[in-house]
Amino acid sequence: MQAPDELFRLAEGYLADLALTPELGAQQDSMRYALEGGKRIRAVICLATAEAAGTEPEAALPAAAALELVHAFSLVHDDLPALDDDDERRGRPSAHVAFGEGVALLAGDGLLAEAFRLALSYPTAGPARELAEATLGMIGGQYLDITGADVDLAELHRLKTGRLFAAAVGLGLQVAGVPEAEQAPWRAFGEELGLLFQVVDDILDGDGYAARLGVDEARGLAGESAERSWGALAAIPADTTVLRAIVDGLAVRTT
Amino acid sequence: MQAPDELFRLAEGYLADLALTPELGAQQDSMRYALEGGKRIRAVICLATAEAAGTEPEAALPAAAALELVHAFSLVHDDLPALDDDDERRGRPSAHVAFGEGVALLAGDGLLAEAFRLALSYPTAGPARELAEATLGMIGGQYLDITGADVDLAELHRLKTGRLFAAAVGLGLQVAGVPEAEQAPWRAFGEELGLLFQVVDDILDGDGYAARLGVDEARGLAGESAERSWGALAAIPADTTVLRAIVDGLAVRTT
Repeated sequence: MQAPDELFRLAEGYLADLALTPELGAQQDSMRYALEGGKRIRAVICLATAEAAGTEPEAALPAAAALELVHAFSLVHDDLPALDDDDERRGRPSAHVAFGEGVALLAGDGLLAEAFRLALSYPTAGPARELAEATLGMIGGQYLDITGADVDLAELHRLKTGRLFAAAVGLGLQVAGVPEAEQAPWRAFGEELGLLFQVVDDILDGDGYAARLGVDEARGLAGESAERSWGALAAIPADTTVLRAIVDGLAVRTT
Repeated sequence: MQAPDELFRLAEGYLADLALTPELGAQQDSMRYALEGGKRIRAVICLATAEAAGTEPEAALPAAAALELVHAFSLVHDDLPALDDDDERRGRPSAHVAFGEGVALLAGDGLLAEAFRLALSYPTAGPARELAEATLGMIGGQYLDITGADVDLAELHRLKTGRLFAAAVGLGLQVAGVPEAEQAPWRAFGEELGLLFQVVDDILDGDGYAARLGVDEARGLAGESAERSWGALAAIPADTTVLRAIVDGLAVRTT
């Protein structure tokens, strides 16, 4: 079994070498820029799930990369002036600052379409179907985020963050060919990951859950979520050591 | 065989009843708005191709609708201030005027993801793969359009308009299960349609080919393209009467 940092390097290498559609021409530059510098958490979860479920993590690389492309698409569009208007991302100028708004808009579109192309490189439509449904849920969450002042934070993040984390587990299962009848405990684990990630993220950023509940209560929520994740992992009849290490890393991360 | 206007009504009815992903919530309103009022040319070509290739056009409805969703996505994003900054579309305020820029941006994203969900409703990944490749080519064309002052018009439109028209034929073939070895004459026909549509569009709008070549020369180009389309149809071993009527309609349309 490969450790999380090994899976990270695997995903990083695959993304660095990823051939984009030639017809995109120089549009590719903005897409590669938007892909650089991520923590690849979704990819690592996908690869670790696939390996825990009994397949080579390498087989899950296109699916793992597709998740990172959807994530990058959502960040590029979120950062645009029409939405969050963030000039910085991952310590650098955001895509629309570096390339202009028009090119950044198309970069997000291109990343989403390339994500489907990658997910469609598998023989069956399952991975791409799961990616489409997760992406639509995520967009529903983004809509709640920009329009709903009094919206339920848990529902917002279940969609905006949680759907793609859950899909990271789901795509790993699809690639490993885990029969649907055996997927439930894995999926219960996947459902928890988005909350864990988001609460810790909000504590680090001082917003969201931390702002609404206070840091202490948010820390308590993160602890409960980590415990539920451990419990979900314990119910999976497989070696989930690496997934456990990922949960622990998410719970104590400082960046 | 159903006539083009019957196929139009078939597509219109399917799109009007189309269930979008519930998690999109009220975001669906902007997506439905952006879908309304189109001529459904791409959908009609897809349905007519499927029927000419020997299957019920009804079987091609999800694929035909997916093409219209991708087309609507491209219009919503193209109309945004960051790209063409068009306030009007199909005789009404464009999506960002009606719903605001942020919601319009997400509407385009949602339409693209829903298009893949629809294309993925088929048992095989073929239709969705073809849609992904066409969409990526189209985005490459949009990039040329906003960045390339001296760009080759034919190459720009082969990508920006042509890829989706060609995919309309391609998806019809996929749904009808036409073996790859027999697809070449159909695809040659599909490759011609985008040019024919675009040249006539530019003559009607007084821009693009009409502005660059003058109206008379553009009319000549449209006539040549229609003749090549007829020739391509004649090489297809099937009853292509309806596709011929569609070509004739594209060549003489006035709106």
